[in-house]
Amino acid sequence: MQITAAEIYRSMEMIRQNAPVVHNITNYVVMNNTANALLALGASPVMAHAAEEVEEMVNIASALVINIGTLSKSWIASMLKAAAQAGKKDIPIIIDPVGAGATTYRTKTARDLIGNNPPAVIRGNASEIMALSDDSTRTKGVDIAARNLSEIYKCVVCVSGAVDYVVEGSKIIKVGNGHPLMTKVTGLGCTASALCGAFAAVEKSAFTATAGAMTVMGIAGEMAAEGCPGPGSFQVRFLDALYSLTEEDLRRRLRIAPENG
Amino acid sequence: MQITAAEIYRSMEMIRQNAPVVHNITNYVVMNNTANALLALGASPVMAHAAEEVEEMVNIASALVINIGTLSKSWIASMLKAAAQAGKKDIPIIIDPVGAGATTYRTKTARDLIGNNPPAVIRGNASEIMALSDDSTRTKGVDIAARNLSEIYKCVVCVSGAVDYVVEGSKIIKVGNGHPLMTKVTGLGCTASALCGAFAAVEKSAFTATAGAMTVMGIAGEMAAEGCPGPGSFQVRFLDALYSLTEEDLRRRLRIAPENG
Amino acid sequence: MQITAAEIYRSMEMIRQNAPVVHNITNYVVMNNTANALLALGASPVMAHAAEEVEEMVNIASALVINIGTLSKSWIASMLKAAAQAGKKDIPIIIDPVGAGATTYRTKTARDLIGNNPPAVIRGNASEIMALSDDSTRTKGVDIAARNLSEIYKCVVCVSGAVDYVVEGSKIIKVGNGHPLMTKVTGLGCTASALCGAFAAVEKSAFTATAGAMTVMGIAGEMAAEGCPGPGSFQVRFLDALYSLTEEDLRRRLRIAPENG
Repeated sequence: MQITAAEIYRSMEMIRQNAPVVHNITNYVVMNNTANALLALGASPVMAHAAEEVEEMVNIASALVINIGTLSKSWIASMLKAAAQAGKKDIPIIIDPVGAGATTYRTKTARDLIGNNPPAVIRGNASEIMALSDDSTRTKGVDIAARNLSEIYKCVVCVSGAVDYVVEGSKIIKVGNGHPLMTKVTGLGCTASALCGAFAAVEKSAFTATAGAMTVMGIAGEMAAEGCPGPGSFQVRFLDALYSLTEEDLRRRLRIAPENG
Repeated sequence: MQITAAEIYRSMEMIRQNAPVVHNITNYVVMNNTANALLALGASPVMAHAAEEVEEMVNIASALVINIGTLSKSWIASMLKAAAQAGKKDIPIIIDPVGAGATTYRTKTARDLIGNNPPAVIRGNASEIMALSDDSTRTKGVDIAARNLSEIYKCVVCVSGAVDYVVEGSKIIKVGNGHPLMTKVTGLGCTASALCGAFAAVEKSAFTATAGAMTVMGIAGEMAAEGCPGPGSFQVRFLDALYSLTEEDLRRRLRIAPENG
Repeated sequence: MQITAAEIYRSMEMIRQNAPVVHNITNYVVMNNTANALLALGASPVMAHAAEEVEEMVNIASALVINIGTLSKSWIASMLKAAAQAGKKDIPIIIDPVGAGATTYRTKTARDLIGNNPPAVIRGNASEIMALSDDSTRTKGVDIAARNLSEIYKCVVCVSGAVDYVVEGSKIIKVGNGHPLMTKVTGLGCTASALCGAFAAVEKSAFTATAGAMTVMGIAGEMAAEGCPGPGSFQVRFLDALYSLTEEDLRRRLRIAPENG
C-alpha cells in the first residue's frame, strides 16, 4: 500500500474546485481555526449544533466532523442525531475523541458516538485511541490498539503524533511529515480531523483520504515552521501554507511509507 | 444620494473618540474576531447572552448586534429579549441572519427577530436576504428582494458580495471596495455586521452608517490584501488596517456610487 | 517585599519543564487565545465545563482558572462544582470577575464564586475589583478596595491597568510593565488570569506567582509592541514573545516595585 503525491494533490484540487460543505460539530476552543483551515484548503465549513437543525445541515453536507472537545448534554444529543442522519445519507463521519481517557464522560461519549453510527474515520492521539480500544489490546501498544479499533468498527483509525499512523484493518501507513511547533498551538489535532472531513468529502477511500489529510497537515506545518519565531507566527503561516500548497510542495516533502517501508 | 470619504471618516473619528459600547450576541466561531475588529476600529465590544443579564447589558450599549450563526433555544430567547429592550430604549439593532435559507430553524429565527423588533439594519449575503424576502420578489433578483425587505420592515438592508448593496426603500448605494481574499477568512460578514453596529452607534442615519461600515470593511480588506501571502496573514493585516486607517486612505480608495452611478 | 527576575524566571522554567495542567472554565471569546497563551508559556491547558466532568478534570489539574466573561446558568453550576472540588484538593483557584459591576448577574456570580471557595487569586480591572469590595471602601480608591477584598477572603487581589497592583493584606507590589496596544486586543486580561494559574501551579506563594505572571504578561506585551503596526500583528508577536522570553529579557525589562518603591 503506497499513496503518492499525485493522488493527494488530486484530492486537493477536487476540494479547491468543488468547495465541499463540511459540517462541523466541534468545540468552542477551535471553531474559528477549524473554519479557517477548511476555507484555506478550499472547502466550505458550516457549524451548527442545535438539535432543531443538525439533520437539515447534514443533508447539505459532504462530510460530518464531530469533535468532543467541550462537551455538554445538549451537544451530545445533537451529535448523536447528526451522526444518525449522516449514517442514513451515507455521508462520511469523522470522530475526534478529544480527551477520551481523561474523563469518564468523554470516554463514554466517544464510545456512544462510534458505536451508534460507524464513522469513516476516528482520529486521535495515542492516549485517546488507547482509551477507546479493548482493554486486552492496550498493553500491546497503540498500533495494535488502533488495528483492534479499526477491525471492530470497520473504520479507518488515525493515531497522530510525531509520526502519524493511518490504520484500516491490516493496512497501515506512516506519515512522517510535521514539526514540533505544531504541539505549541491549540487545536491542530482538531484541524487535522476537519481536513480528514474535507478529503473524505471528495475521495471514496477513507484510508486514502485520511493519509492525504495528515500529509497535507504535516507539510503545511513544515512550511509554516521554516524560520518561524514562535507559535503566534506559526498559526498565521500555517493557514497561508494550506492556501498556497502546490503539487510540487507535496512531491518534494512527502514522507509517507507503508508500515514496513 | 452620495456619501463622501469625509462623512465616513467623521464617523470613524467619533467611534475612536467615544468608544461606543456595542453589545454583541453572536456566534461562537467569530466572537473573538468580532471583538478584535471592534476594538481595532475604536469601539468597546461586550458579549453577553444570558437571559438574566441581556437587558441590563443593552442598557449600557449604543448598539445591539444579533448574529444567528450558531443558534440554540436559550440563545434565541435571549436574542428576542435583548432586541425588545433595545427597541424600548431606541438603541439601533443590527441583524445578521447567518445561514437563513440553509435550515428552516435559521430562516424562522431570523424572521422572528426582525418581525418582533424592527432592526435598523439587516446585513447578509444574497442567499440570506433572498430567504427572508417575500416569495414573490425572489425571482426578480436580490436588489428587488432587498428593496422589498427594506420597505416591509422600514429598515436598511445590506446585501454583501463582490459589490455590496445598501438599500433603504428606493435609495440604493453600491460599495465596490473589497478583495477576494475576504471570502477565504471565516466571519468577515459577521465582522461587517459588527462594524455596522459601531457606525450606527455614532451616526443617526442607518443608511449612512451602513454604507460607512461596508466601505471601511472593503478598504481595510484591500489594504490587508496588498502583497499578502494568504488568509492567515490577511487576518492579521486586516486588524492592523482597521486600526490605522486614515482619511487619506478612505479618500484615495473609496469606490461608492449610487445605483445609477 | 521585592521579587526578582531570577525568581520569576525560575517559575517560568518550572512551567516549561513540567507543563502543568491548567483547567480553564472561561468565556467563549477568549478560549482560543487563553489556550494558546498557556501553550506558548509552556503549560498544558484543558477546557471542560460540563457538570458531568469538571470534578474529574480538576483532579488532574494543578490550577483552576474561572472566568465569568460569558455566563449562563449551567456554566455557573459547573464553576461552583469545579471550585468546590479544587478547594477539597487544595488546587489553587484563580477568579477573573469579567464585567462584575456591569450587570447584577455578574457581580452576584463573582461574589458567589469567591464566597463559596476562597480563591488563591482574584484578578480584575479597577471597576471589577471595586464592584466586589465593600461599599464602605469604594470611595477610598482601588488600592484600599483591593486590600479590603484581600483581607476578607485571605487571597491575593490583582488590579490590572497601566500599572498593575498585586495585593495580599498589607503587602503591595506594583508592576509597571505593559503597553497601551494591549488594550486594543480582546481578552488579554483573561490571558493574564490564565497565566496566574500557570504560575500558581508551580509556585507556592500566590503573591509571588501573581507578580510573576503579571510581569511576564507586561514584558511579552512590550516585546510584541516594538515596531508593531497594529493589534493584529500584536497578537501574533505576543505569543511569539511568551514562547521565546529569556531570563535576560526579564532582567533587562523588569519594572516591579513595592508600593513605596
